[in-house]
Amino acid sequence: MATRKAPRRTAQRILESSLALFNRFGEPGVSTNAIAADMGISPGNLYYHFPAKDDLVNALFLQYEQALQPILDAADAVTNVEDAWFFLHSLFEANWQYRFVFRNLNELLSRNRHLEARVREWMDALGRSMNALLSTMQSHRALLAPPLGWDTVGTSMVVVQVYWLSYEYVRDPRKALEEDNAQNAALRSAAHVLSLLAPYATSGQQAHLRHLIDAYGVRQAEAQANAAA
Amino acid sequence: MATRKAPRRTAQRILESSLALFNRFGEPGVSTNAIAADMGISPGNLYYHFPAKDDLVNALFLQYEQALQPILDAADAVTNVEDAWFFLHSLFEANWQYRFVFRNLNELLSRNRHLEARVREWMDALGRSMNALLSTMQSHRALLAPPLGWDTVGTSMVVVQVYWLSYEYVRDPRKALEEDNAQNAALRSAAHVLSLLAPYATSGQQAHLRHLIDAYGVRQAEAQANAAA
Repeated sequence: MATRKAPRRTAQRILESSLALFNRFGEPGVSTNAIAADMGISPGNLYYHFPAKDDLVNALFLQYEQALQPILDAADAVTNVEDAWFFLHSLFEANWQYRFVFRNLNELLSRNRHLEARVREWMDALGRSMNALLSTMQSHRALLAPPLGWDTVGTSMVVVQVYWLSYEYVRDPRKALEEDNAQNAALRSAAHVLSLLAPYATSGQQAHLRHLIDAYGVRQAEAQANAAA
Repeated sequence: MATRKAPRRTAQRILESSLALFNRFGEPGVSTNAIAADMGISPGNLYYHFPAKDDLVNALFLQYEQALQPILDAADAVTNVEDAWFFLHSLFEANWQYRFVFRNLNELLSRNRHLEARVREWMDALGRSMNALLSTMQSHRALLAPPLGWDTVGTSMVVVQVYWLSYEYVRDPRKALEEDNAQNAALRSAAHVLSLLAPYATSGQQAHLRHLIDAYGVRQAEAQANAAA
């Protein structure tokens, strides 16, 4: 039995190494030979498990989707601002684990047709979960109905959530995707998507929402002060 | 005099051809040799004007910034919803002319250090103009003060505006950046950024805002009906 499991473990190890290298250097900057060298295995061994680099990317995207699904499924249990904060933070943590996707999403798509349809489905699933969250919060009287319906609010939440890491990367290409930045990036991302709900929050939820977003504001001010010092 | 102007005209023609090819096929997919072949000039002639492909990209980004500047400068003359719509539409039209930047922004940055600082300044300029627009609209009683200040609203407007084309590209990689889509893409982009103002619009502005965004909604419904037919 042990020998039959060995290839599977190798495949999993290859995925873990690939993910770490893609996240650190960007997917276009990492060849399959570099992954094999990093792991101390032969290129032929890697090729046996993943004949093309796209196979690695597709397998990692599948892992990401599997990590995301239970979070998205919880969207219609979000009844208040505190739940929404936790939900958005969890979403962002899954994104962070697979941040190479968010650094080069459109470039990945331009080279990988298989991913094209999958990414569209993923965007649609994100949109549906945002709409579920918004209407559940409204039915629990945490949000007031918006003047134009929830669709455009939900789409903005998707765009800000999906492109937040790209935005941070543009603002600071050397540091934005470094491991040390994970916690602050998660706070900023969750606070920012949450801020899109601020104008709709009912009076009972406003103070708590402001508190959550101010906590992020304080951290941001601290970071700016540190940068200036 | 005519002979002295010739190189300048060639340089300008090279930029125009590059822009058209980059927009159509994406910057990574177009080599300087392909640009020279498309124009019917020798690679050496192109190289004489632009020794590296990054020189072309940088010159085009400078053109984009120059096209954008007079629009951004008009942000503090935006006093109502109609002005805001026109402003956002104009911004989007400049983005559309240089849409190759928006398809591969982060990949461009990862290969071009000169662009890194320029893009950061551009993002900051966008943020300042959004804040100018928001506070001018508030001082003209077109918007109510938001619960959390304008900064997070302004940042969301920047993120949605900058990444809207990326989002459309992900949703439909084959058609999103085609010339035929320009008008609808401009409407969707402007409507979407404008929708972020909806919860703050004063009662006198609400109906007009709704009208502008509904016009976009009708078009979207039509597009979906056409796609289903």
